Amino acid sequence: MPADQPTSRQPDPGRQGVQQPDEASAAYGPTARTRPTRARERAGYDRELVHAILDDDYLCHLGFVRDGAPVVLPTLYARVGERLYVHGSTGSRPLREAGRPEPGMPVCLTVTRVDGLVLAKSAFHHSVNYRSVVVHGLARQVTDPAERCAALDALVENIVPGRADDSRRADAKELAATAVVRVDLTEASAKVRTGGPEDEPEDRNLPYWSGVLPVSRTYGTPVPADEPGPGIPVPGYLTAR
Amino acid sequence: MPADQPTSRQPDPGRQGVQQPDEASAAYGPTARTRPTRARERAGYDRELVHAILDDDYLCHLGFVRDGAPVVLPTLYARVGERLYVHGSTGSRPLREAGRPEPGMPVCLTVTRVDGLVLAKSAFHHSVNYRSVVVHGLARQVTDPAERCAALDALVENIVPGRADDSRRADAKELAATAVVRVDLTEASAKVRTGGPEDEPEDRNLPYWSGVLPVSRTYGTPVPADEPGPGIPVPGYLTAR
Repeated sequence: MPADQPTSRQPDPGRQGVQQPDEASAAYGPTARTRPTRARERAGYDRELVHAILDDDYLCHLGFVRDGAPVVLPTLYARVGERLYVHGSTGSRPLREAGRPEPGMPVCLTVTRVDGLVLAKSAFHHSVNYRSVVVHGLARQVTDPAERCAALDALVENIVPGRADDSRRADAKELAATAVVRVDLTEASAKVRTGGPEDEPEDRNLPYWSGVLPVSRTYGTPVPADEPGPGIPVPGYLTAR
Repeated sequence: MPADQPTSRQPDPGRQGVQQPDEASAAYGPTARTRPTRARERAGYDRELVHAILDDDYLCHLGFVRDGAPVVLPTLYARVGERLYVHGSTGSRPLREAGRPEPGMPVCLTVTRVDGLVLAKSAFHHSVNYRSVVVHGLARQVTDPAERCAALDALVENIVPGRADDSRRADAKELAATAVVRVDLTEASAKVRTGGPEDEPEDRNLPYWSGVLPVSRTYGTPVPADEPGPGIPVPGYLTAR
């Protein structure tokens, strides 16, 4: 799993020729920065694949540029159609910077799920089974009240489906303290590796075990907070995970 | 878990005053870009804490700047003392760019482990228990043969301890095809959230369950690759996970 996703050698045309959000198209248009020069067979622009990977996680790593240097921060996200949302305090510098109405702040939002450790006979062919999505775009602050509320619901629902209706929604003061930022899904690519090791033929008789160690994210028994009154039963949307 | 880690409002002094690697010091010197303005209580520069978080994972998100825009890619890493290593194909553009001997390529390397979903009575106070490390630095290609081999061993060992000696190490051709890149641990910070929800007093009697849903990374039963000869027993370093 080397850092080799967008390795175009051509000058980067930026957003030239990038597809606009269009639910009718089955794929995102590849661009110089989403088209890898290596491991092409693992790359894809299929909209369903990109959506499926994004919908299977809630933590992304959001990159932006400050004073010419990269900054990468973990943050929660949610997808609504062809839009990704992140949120944070209005006092947060990256979210303040994204608050510029135009042209927005260039960001790269990356989501990665690890599914397995791939052990080959040779160290060189060790790898990782994973699913990742890289989204390039402009982050813009969301000001429309209805869109903001829908995005905040989506952020809660993406972590725990069923929870938005089973908690107190944000009041006016909390909404005023919360920045909601949107990144449109126009320039996105997925990478997926599955399957076993790909050893060299001359290595296949070496006396080392080879195969895949599956990796998964699991949820434990819910731990209730101290309740002032009688306990509240664990909701079904938690026990079903 | 909003994107609020380095939210300094002061001009960024860059690497001015940044501590050089020094095993004797118990902490990394905070800088403008590792000192958060929000959630200070969760931030730390303690060397042992930073090391412990880094050593508990193998996947990082590596950010760099290309044509003025951020790029964030998932990649494997390993720590050796006060150095982090990543690797990839020599054909990979980010690793070629890091190949400049001086001054190196500015990168941000971020590692995040999610430990729990924190469900509060109010949507606003929903959160995530996590441990993260953000490292700012310059990526430089490693050319010393001994350091390259040690780094490649560390990358295998960090994923599966015990595996470097139980696989075929890279030969000359494979080494020639592999770029090894180093980032010194000089400007690093950790953030940790633990514990239950922090609800407003007036919300504590609301009829919604609150607490923490633990999240962990688990390993399944090893799946052997097809062997040309008799099967090889699953090694102890895999069954012990």
